[in-house]
Amino acid sequence: MSILVVGSVAFDSIETPSGKREKILGGAATHFALAASYFTDVRVIGVVGEDFGPEHEGVLTRRKIDTRGIERADGKCFHWTGSYLNDLNSAETLQTDLNVFATFAPKIPAEFLDSEYLFLANIDPVLQARVRAQMPKVKMVCGDTMNYWIGSHLENLKKVLAELDVLLINDGEARMLSGESNALRAAEKVMAMGPKALVVKHGEYGATGYFSNKAFDGVAGLKWPFRAPALPLAEVVDPTGAGDSFAGGFYGYIASQSKLTPAVFRTAMFYGGVMGSLAVEQFGTERLAELDPKEIAERFQIFREISHLEA
Amino acid sequence: MSILVVGSVAFDSIETPSGKREKILGGAATHFALAASYFTDVRVIGVVGEDFGPEHEGVLTRRKIDTRGIERADGKCFHWTGSYLNDLNSAETLQTDLNVFATFAPKIPAEFLDSEYLFLANIDPVLQARVRAQMPKVKMVCGDTMNYWIGSHLENLKKVLAELDVLLINDGEARMLSGESNALRAAEKVMAMGPKALVVKHGEYGATGYFSNKAFDGVAGLKWPFRAPALPLAEVVDPTGAGDSFAGGFYGYIASQSKLTPAVFRTAMFYGGVMGSLAVEQFGTERLAELDPKEIAERFQIFREISHLEA
Repeated sequence: MSILVVGSVAFDSIETPSGKREKILGGAATHFALAASYFTDVRVIGVVGEDFGPEHEGVLTRRKIDTRGIERADGKCFHWTGSYLNDLNSAETLQTDLNVFATFAPKIPAEFLDSEYLFLANIDPVLQARVRAQMPKVKMVCGDTMNYWIGSHLENLKKVLAELDVLLINDGEARMLSGESNALRAAEKVMAMGPKALVVKHGEYGATGYFSNKAFDGVAGLKWPFRAPALPLAEVVDPTGAGDSFAGGFYGYIASQSKLTPAVFRTAMFYGGVMGSLAVEQFGTERLAELDPKEIAERFQIFREISHLEA
Repeated sequence: MSILVVGSVAFDSIETPSGKREKILGGAATHFALAASYFTDVRVIGVVGEDFGPEHEGVLTRRKIDTRGIERADGKCFHWTGSYLNDLNSAETLQTDLNVFATFAPKIPAEFLDSEYLFLANIDPVLQARVRAQMPKVKMVCGDTMNYWIGSHLENLKKVLAELDVLLINDGEARMLSGESNALRAAEKVMAMGPKALVVKHGEYGATGYFSNKAFDGVAGLKWPFRAPALPLAEVVDPTGAGDSFAGGFYGYIASQSKLTPAVFRTAMFYGGVMGSLAVEQFGTERLAELDPKEIAERFQIFREISHLEA
């Protein structure tokens, strides 16, 4: 079934201990869509500038991602410049040029309105809410956010959270959003704001899924959180987009299944880790643009081996 | 089969967000021995002062721990005073009174020489090496250490590492010992110093086991590390001794099995997490001194549920 994702389609200039790239294809919606495309149909809502060429669009369309919702605007693409030279676990932003993204007003093409799964990537919660309102009939809504929106746009963000099925954030964001340092109590406070489930990403330590008591197909009121591993890698070439790739693997797998059950949710968290671990092995979209599905199956098996008592 | 543990038997004065305790029973060997005692016979080598009374020794002997190796010296017990008020994940040391521990010279009673498993808790590596040398026939040697010995006594520590089967340390210690921030490369560098396997503890994120290619019963050259979860707890009452309790559960389970296989090593890492998660639910030794074995079995089942795709 189809996932509709709204978010940034952008260029990144990145420096990591493994090397440097100038103006390569990036953006949350791009990484998410590529990861999810190995599991289900994906449609993208975003905005690009005149510097977005057929070679960039081809990265998406070769994975059969529907790009009809990517608006072309006068000017240049959103361009992020960052460095991981000091710490591979946290990006240092050197420059952010919003460009065409500054006036982005998401419009949903009529042919996308039947999408059953909606993913609100990390953008202004006002835009997330606007997209959500245009899709009253979706079966499930997942979303992401970041410290900037939590800190400075909390009231707008809370309106989005109130309507989410699953929120995906990292440890720091969960602490900031809840004002609570204990992970379990933080999760409970965040879910009290709306999300029926919460996936907290721990970087190299994997992710934890929490479930509220609210109705949510077969996953309501699971007694214990679920912990999915991450794979220790000898070299992380470029962490950019790891979280979006996690979200794409997670949500893509859910959308590919007929029913959401605890087993599907758990497996989806594993696929999130799988796609995240593959994404960081090369710069930008290089790895996820050209995966052999066999590599995904093999990596999934490794995730099982590193975490299960009987492998 | 019997585990011999050498380490501190001490008093702790502890303040945490849950409360305050003065001069309660603690010490690495104490926490380790209590946790391991639910799996196998345990013998303790340590030193105590005149303030160590029958009520303290009773905590150990009620768990059938053999205390004949605990020497009584003139003076007072090792006494640590610490606070977790600022951060439950890292203790702030307010005072360390070594007392009788300052001149500790471990002596192994003749009746302990047939111990098959040796655990070198976190003490001066010179003492660890001295104990190791007196036990030439042990089947397996595990050890712990801390940043202080890595920073200031590295040459002595390296002599201990060269003879270890398994080293248990935390993330920061692994980085410090290896000079490497990547977890996988850090593990390889540490194992190149001697240990055939390495268990790195991540606090609330669980632990990772790494395996070298050296012969080590059935666990040699496992291709992938193994990740054991930790249980998200709504309240950590007192983290003191969590790492020693992990080690006790881990090593106690191994010593209780006839053969070391990959499945035994993995299960042992789960029992490490189980005993650590129980230990922190009350102050000091309160929880592990009085466990019902059923509680261990139930907690183990929860660890499986939170980490396995098919629970």
